Amino acid sequence: MLESEKKILRVDMKNLTVKWEDTPDKYKLLAGRGLTSAIIASEVPGLADAIGPKNKLVVAPGMVTGSTAPTSGRISVGGKSPLTNGIKEANAGGRTPHKLARAGVRALVVENQPSDRDAWYNILIRKGDAEIVQANEFRSMGAYDLIKKVYEKYDTKPGIIGAGVAGQNLLKGAGIFGNNVENTDPGRYAGRGGLGAVLGSKNVIAIITDDSPGEPIQPVDRDKFKDGTRRLSEALRSHPVTGDDGGLQNYGTNILMNIINEAGALPTRNWQTGQFEDAAKISGEAHHERVDQVIELTAGNTDACYAHACNPGCIIKCSNAVPFNNNTNMVSAFEYETSWALGANCGIGNIDDVAELNRMCNDYGLDTIETGNAIGVAMQAGVIAFGDAEGAKKLMREIAENTPNGRIVGNGAVTVGNVYGITRVAHVKGQSLPAYDPRPIKGIGVTYATNPMGGDHTAGYTIAAEILGIKGTVTDPRAMDKAELSRVFQETTAFLDSSGYCLFTAFSILDIDDGFDGLVQSVAGMLGTEYTLADVGPLGRTILDMEINFNRSAGLSRAHDRLPEFMDSEPLAPHNVVFGVTDEELDKVHPHIP
Amino acid sequence: MLESEKKILRVDMKNLTVKWEDTPDKYKLLAGRGLTSAIIASEVPGLADAIGPKNKLVVAPGMVTGSTAPTSGRISVGGKSPLTNGIKEANAGGRTPHKLARAGVRALVVENQPSDRDAWYNILIRKGDAEIVQANEFRSMGAYDLIKKVYEKYDTKPGIIGAGVAGQNLLKGAGIFGNNVENTDPGRYAGRGGLGAVLGSKNVIAIITDDSPGEPIQPVDRDKFKDGTRRLSEALRSHPVTGDDGGLQNYGTNILMNIINEAGALPTRNWQTGQFEDAAKISGEAHHERVDQVIELTAGNTDACYAHACNPGCIIKCSNAVPFNNNTNMVSAFEYETSWALGANCGIGNIDDVAELNRMCNDYGLDTIETGNAIGVAMQAGVIAFGDAEGAKKLMREIAENTPNGRIVGNGAVTVGNVYGITRVAHVKGQSLPAYDPRPIKGIGVTYATNPMGGDHTAGYTIAAEILGIKGTVTDPRAMDKAELSRVFQETTAFLDSSGYCLFTAFSILDIDDGFDGLVQSVAGMLGTEYTLADVGPLGRTILDMEINFNRSAGLSRAHDRLPEFMDSEPLAPHNVVFGVTDEELDKVHPHIP
Repeated sequence: MLESEKKILRVDMKNLTVKWEDTPDKYKLLAGRGLTSAIIASEVPGLADAIGPKNKLVVAPGMVTGSTAPTSGRISVGGKSPLTNGIKEANAGGRTPHKLARAGVRALVVENQPSDRDAWYNILIRKGDAEIVQANEFRSMGAYDLIKKVYEKYDTKPGIIGAGVAGQNLLKGAGIFGNNVENTDPGRYAGRGGLGAVLGSKNVIAIITDDSPGEPIQPVDRDKFKDGTRRLSEALRSHPVTGDDGGLQNYGTNILMNIINEAGALPTRNWQTGQFEDAAKISGEAHHERVDQVIELTAGNTDACYAHACNPGCIIKCSNAVPFNNNTNMVSAFEYETSWALGANCGIGNIDDVAELNRMCNDYGLDTIETGNAIGVAMQAGVIAFGDAEGAKKLMREIAENTPNGRIVGNGAVTVGNVYGITRVAHVKGQSLPAYDPRPIKGIGVTYATNPMGGDHTAGYTIAAEILGIKGTVTDPRAMDKAELSRVFQETTAFLDSSGYCLFTAFSILDIDDGFDGLVQSVAGMLGTEYTLADVGPLGRTILDMEINFNRSAGLSRAHDRLPEFMDSEPLAPHNVVFGVTDEELDKVHPHIP
Repeated sequence: MLESEKKILRVDMKNLTVKWEDTPDKYKLLAGRGLTSAIIASEVPGLADAIGPKNKLVVAPGMVTGSTAPTSGRISVGGKSPLTNGIKEANAGGRTPHKLARAGVRALVVENQPSDRDAWYNILIRKGDAEIVQANEFRSMGAYDLIKKVYEKYDTKPGIIGAGVAGQNLLKGAGIFGNNVENTDPGRYAGRGGLGAVLGSKNVIAIITDDSPGEPIQPVDRDKFKDGTRRLSEALRSHPVTGDDGGLQNYGTNILMNIINEAGALPTRNWQTGQFEDAAKISGEAHHERVDQVIELTAGNTDACYAHACNPGCIIKCSNAVPFNNNTNMVSAFEYETSWALGANCGIGNIDDVAELNRMCNDYGLDTIETGNAIGVAMQAGVIAFGDAEGAKKLMREIAENTPNGRIVGNGAVTVGNVYGITRVAHVKGQSLPAYDPRPIKGIGVTYATNPMGGDHTAGYTIAAEILGIKGTVTDPRAMDKAELSRVFQETTAFLDSSGYCLFTAFSILDIDDGFDGLVQSVAGMLGTEYTLADVGPLGRTILDMEINFNRSAGLSRAHDRLPEFMDSEPLAPHNVVFGVTDEELDKVHPHIP
């Protein structure tokens, strides 16, 4: 199947009908984030209730997803966010992306709501075919059990994405889980923005995708595509971060724990200080050691692993499966932002506790970043004490049990702050901030403030320049003029999020020009366009503009492109700096949209 | 004392200092709402945390408050609202307004926060003198007890306004209570916008004002003033709504219950229908009958009363004191919006239950409109059932006890909806709507949507034209072209809220031109200006513009000048109409501020 043969699959949850539509011309060169954002921006009213019938939940594989391109098994999940009330795209790997593309789906658009709010459904997608199936027996089931139950019923090991109990209960902290490639865990998350609640609001529990027999998507220009993917693969393999036995394969994303702690930018105990005394205990190095011990103990007879592919064909393999509680349980994956959110940010420095909290989030369908922030604010409010791991687990169980405190915390950090009258809530546009304090690292703060998704590091990961360095040069993290840096990252990211390539390809392609060039060439070969490196910025810009204009119609103005007050009034130890980037500098990022 | 001799009293709660400032030129002709809004707009950053140190709580008597003018004992309380995040003015009568003016205060500005968050204070104001006094013993005390305790300490029966336990606990549903004139109840409320939480965030419990010996403020032009007040008094006395033995004196504001129910615009069971089968049982007529019975039973030896003045010198006397639970208890006052919010909107049709819920709100420091809406949404969410009065009382007690559900409900309707995933939340800009469904009465919906205060009927009470009629003519409530009507009401109101005259003077002055002319003349005589009727609109306009511009800096755009989605998707019985006023019509109200 050619990329151009894929169709728009519309699922109407009010009338319980499905429809395959030929791709309209305006969507023909769009995929991934570019397509989810285009559909939301043109079809959802800016002021629609995010959990109401007028919102839509769109799932779109990237431009090269489903092909033989390396590290390209990514989907974008889009909708109006219940957290930010603006547009949201959340990106994930797992089994679904390649399968969804190969099933012929350019975008799945879930629309409307059933009038019977107690009737629950799964959406079953096969190649060129789709149906809505009754799924009341899946209601309130943990995601681990759900995946196993689906595998019993559909033995092709389909892709599964869905709303856990949190999403079904319309909690704004709910992400959309996806099943792993290497095990049966719900470890792939389109976590942010509360999109799990959007899916839940449509009474959909799981979207099950089977592409059997699984033919790769074919590029329009095969030679161009193959040369491009070859050069990209070489870059990925040769880079010390993304390559074989590189940083990500050894420690996963949690390689960052010690680095960011060292930089004094690890938000600790609800963003009160920038270093955590127990950071090393919950770091990637600690995971790695734990996995090594288990492999030795079990003579290799274990699922524990520190180099999983999160999507088939990934070269980087930054995922993992980490055992905890004396090897009685396992979480997959254990990411940096998660270990920070549920660890350092809550003052919890025990890897078993953090892993267990992580698994609970995965099981209940919760975004770990939002939930860790929410628990941190609850700790600030005195609901439980900082460092109280058992209290945190109890709060987590309350989320699943739907108690009042469970609902407060499950709705995310801003809701906890609102309910408990706490102003130290690290968020932008209602979505809480991830694991990098912007006070000592200005560029990431500019991204948090100005990107259209709300508090989000992946929307313009300037950490790559400000901490890790690009081509051997580190941009001073404390320099104030970061509008340009953030804009370039935001534009490039909007393109990458549409391409189907994992954002982590950036670690190598920003260093290795030939890899970046190959990546763009592979996209051009797939689509039959003349795209070159020079098109990346403008293509990304177009997507950002659509998103920002949607946000304007949703009531988000430049006044929302700001960090919370405490970032400018509370200096962060150990560097004792406030954020301090001016509004004028922030407004330079997207100067053409007032 | 001349009006021009009043000063700005600044109370710094961080340094615990007070300062009397000469009135800067720019504030010289401002009072009431015009002054509170001017101070907030020029001194509070748009993005300040509403319960943080940068917000200010401003209390300002009106232009003629403290004088001998009738029905002029009103204060404006202003701040950035924790509910709307925009500017807010809430207006109240009671003992404080005249006394505050006569103590020489043009505006009291409470600034900053104590670093010790557990240290509580009262502010004590005497003529030309003020101090901050330690008040930890008042913490968490009910407002009924608090007033009695203050009266024990200060036997001059001072004016008292303050934050109840709700405000002290930073709940967004918290109003600012004030003591009554005719009894010791905390029945005067600057209720809306969550300003009680702003005062609580500054660790201030009560503001106690003693103007002994109580000399009236003197006008600049005595003859002009006296002629104006005389003509206004005549209009008030001769009008069937505001005059002796008129509608308001007999039934209070709750004369509206049967009228609005008859109009099919009484929001019932969380805005699901427009008529309540038990409306008559909780109406002004029912109060009146109850009071009559008690007067007869006790041979007049009772505090029960249906014609109280809410401020000394008021001609209208629309307040009351209504006994409940077999005369074992009393609530003062029992207003229409309260009886609606805690009655019809919760499906509670028993006057004793509604009165008890009203008294609980008064005691805890809660806005009845916000709290009734919050309970209605909680009923919608299934926390308790519609009509469950005992459940509602339990929820109320939970607010005082600070339980999780208490905090959810105490933070108002939008928070309840957010936490429980309910979209039928009747609000604008985060503040819940009062007792007039805008679906069958379009003009009040235009006011709700476009006035700078969020969901608020008093900001432009088109009900006067659309239901009650002006000069014998009723404007068709279902006509869609209400931008002009709402604008005129909003502008006139902004002027009246600044004048110190009660808004209810409008009932007569809109019918009797000479009364309106007299009112304006009395203001001109007080200030020594040449104001005429033609200045009312432009003066109000200036205030609205200040407020809207503040809101823009706070992130409120035209997209926030809208009613919630369900108002356009759920037709309201019995007329089965949706709101339907276009965005274009709404944007005509303030067309010059994009």
